[in-house]
Amino acid sequence: MSETSELLIPRGFRFGACKAGLKASGRTDFAVIVADRPASAAALFTANRVVAAPLIVDKEHLSASGGKVRVAAINAGNANCAAGQAGMDAARATCAAAAEIFGCLPEEVFPSSTGIIGKPLPAEKLIAVMPELAASIGAEDDHFLQLARAIMTTDLVEKTAFARLEVAGPDGTIREVRIAGVCKGSGMIHPQLIPHATMLAYVMTDAAIEPKVLDGYLLPSAEVSFNRISVDGDTSTNDTVLVLASGASGVSIAANDAGFATALTQVMTSLARQIVADGEGVTHVVELHIVGALNDAEAVKVAKAISHSPLVKTAWAGCDPNWGRLMAAIGYSGAQIDPDQIDIWFGELRICRDGGRAEEFDEKTANAYIAQPAFTVRIELHQGSGSCVFWTTDLTHEYVHINADYST
Amino acid sequence: MSETSELLIPRGFRFGACKAGLKASGRTDFAVIVADRPASAAALFTANRVVAAPLIVDKEHLSASGGKVRVAAINAGNANCAAGQAGMDAARATCAAAAEIFGCLPEEVFPSSTGIIGKPLPAEKLIAVMPELAASIGAEDDHFLQLARAIMTTDLVEKTAFARLEVAGPDGTIREVRIAGVCKGSGMIHPQLIPHATMLAYVMTDAAIEPKVLDGYLLPSAEVSFNRISVDGDTSTNDTVLVLASGASGVSIAANDAGFATALTQVMTSLARQIVADGEGVTHVVELHIVGALNDAEAVKVAKAISHSPLVKTAWAGCDPNWGRLMAAIGYSGAQIDPDQIDIWFGELRICRDGGRAEEFDEKTANAYIAQPAFTVRIELHQGSGSCVFWTTDLTHEYVHINADYST
Repeated sequence: MSETSELLIPRGFRFGACKAGLKASGRTDFAVIVADRPASAAALFTANRVVAAPLIVDKEHLSASGGKVRVAAINAGNANCAAGQAGMDAARATCAAAAEIFGCLPEEVFPSSTGIIGKPLPAEKLIAVMPELAASIGAEDDHFLQLARAIMTTDLVEKTAFARLEVAGPDGTIREVRIAGVCKGSGMIHPQLIPHATMLAYVMTDAAIEPKVLDGYLLPSAEVSFNRISVDGDTSTNDTVLVLASGASGVSIAANDAGFATALTQVMTSLARQIVADGEGVTHVVELHIVGALNDAEAVKVAKAISHSPLVKTAWAGCDPNWGRLMAAIGYSGAQIDPDQIDIWFGELRICRDGGRAEEFDEKTANAYIAQPAFTVRIELHQGSGSCVFWTTDLTHEYVHINADYST
Repeated sequence: MSETSELLIPRGFRFGACKAGLKASGRTDFAVIVADRPASAAALFTANRVVAAPLIVDKEHLSASGGKVRVAAINAGNANCAAGQAGMDAARATCAAAAEIFGCLPEEVFPSSTGIIGKPLPAEKLIAVMPELAASIGAEDDHFLQLARAIMTTDLVEKTAFARLEVAGPDGTIREVRIAGVCKGSGMIHPQLIPHATMLAYVMTDAAIEPKVLDGYLLPSAEVSFNRISVDGDTSTNDTVLVLASGASGVSIAANDAGFATALTQVMTSLARQIVADGEGVTHVVELHIVGALNDAEAVKVAKAISHSPLVKTAWAGCDPNWGRLMAAIGYSGAQIDPDQIDIWFGELRICRDGGRAEEFDEKTANAYIAQPAFTVRIELHQGSGSCVFWTTDLTHEYVHINADYST
């Protein structure tokens, strides 16, 4: 159990993974998160209008169960998207089989899929290995890490994050609440999560939280974490973030608990940054600080234009401090700007002042700064007090290689 | 003179080019179009809010001259953008020198620049070679082609297009009107031209047309040509389309002349397609036909989402018929769609029917089709009667190479 664990795994959950034969690599590709009792659930899904079958089923199930989940059943290797009725049937058949073997209602099963779009999901492969999957579950660190590995597609590393907070009870005793997150994602990463996101993220806590209260925590945390990253600007059909609260800590969390909100945001931000760092072909992770925008939404517009500019991203791949490309992207972002009031810094190096080349701009120093695997670009617009922090990547030969050779 | 020419060069113009030392390659980089008399002019410029200095001067000059241009002075190798007051001063100094040597008013000079953003334009280099440039001008085919070559940056080939129409005069005599266009552009290509676009395009005609009438022809033609292409989705700070009418044919063209409008659109569409075909690192040119959209604007939204998707474009680079990525891009385009009513064809090959894999989809046949250097993708949305034709490209290793190594 997690008491003997090195990881802060929330109590009340077990994890398992096995091989269903969906990944060409032959690696584990089917995993479950099993809550000991129906867990409170809150979820966000992609804003893409083409939505994968499991997400449609998820929404139905959360509604039917009153926001309760016993089993999250997650396959990698096939997105089960754009597969018509066959895709819906495959998702439902998988849920039915999981419900039977884990002893819950079908609507308490939360299916997720990730992988190639447009090929029917072979549900029979998932159903065939369900007994093996059920036999594999446990609450040790290894079980959690098996889950993290099974859901990977083009990811190179597994992605996990943990937080804990101590809560004083009415009787003064201190009790611990744990939060653990796991996610996958490397390409087709530009989540635009909306309430009711090919990134899959699962966050578990052993706090006791009502589903509606949990809902209230999820969107604000997602807004400054998963909704602030982009690898390639492609918003997936399958993006999903699920938060589960088992209550097994015995600690109840009400709405507007700043400590819980902060810990949840920390876990989600850590996961989001791990996705960017493991983005397809990435050699540079860039943290954008957009400040002085008219408002926060305008700051995000600027960050997204920069994050989606092939010219900016290839310059970064070449360690080229070509700030003119940044200026062009800022200009077409749609945000209110004054070209003569734009300041740009690479880390502490001033590159652009008042929309023109800064006198102290030294190309060699700038080049050395952005040759680092992670660096910061700060842009000050002088239009207002809006700001955002956003994480993105370069665009490399390896990205082209991965995506010109993947799939069919 | 053009009467002996093989090219249909409009009468009333001369062309020249020389080396000002702006291009690292040492090639010709400074060119002029000189009208024998003040030509009627209509121009469109980029929608980017960061606008290069010459474009600001162009707008001032067109206003001051009442839509008349004697000299278009075009340098490649430096965009004269994000260079503050020094950039404005350089543009004005170049115009003043050109006005003096070509014997016109400074406001009759139309400056253009293309190349790297953020470095001050060395106007003194342009001014120093102005006598040489003036001595080089002529109306032969070679002069026209020298112009086409001098304005190239990462372009691999020069881009020209020609059209002619015959117009019957009041006395029944048939007279010829010529239209010739020249442009450059390869990267940072996603023009969004608005009235008052790193693409530079110059179209000349020997028709006699009032500036305001010429204005009326320009935007509709630009909408279905330059505004329907994208190489990398980066909208430049310098995009410019200038149409000049010398009147030297003796043929007057009034508003709403269908023959002239068609010929102008033909020339502009040809130039636009040449830019896409010569896009940076391009190995596949893709003609998108979006049909059945709610309206034309919605069709363009879908075309742009597809044209800007790194995942779609790298799949094309790999000759991979991964239509799932097309579905994802359609889904996040923002256009009104029904995922279950989307049909996709690669040429005559049906790939997707009702949002799912078409039964007749054969990967090998599809792969062979998109292995061609140019192919068509047709998407039917079944939402209305809106449509568009849009030209775009794949995203290749060579694109990354060019843009990770360009500039500093």
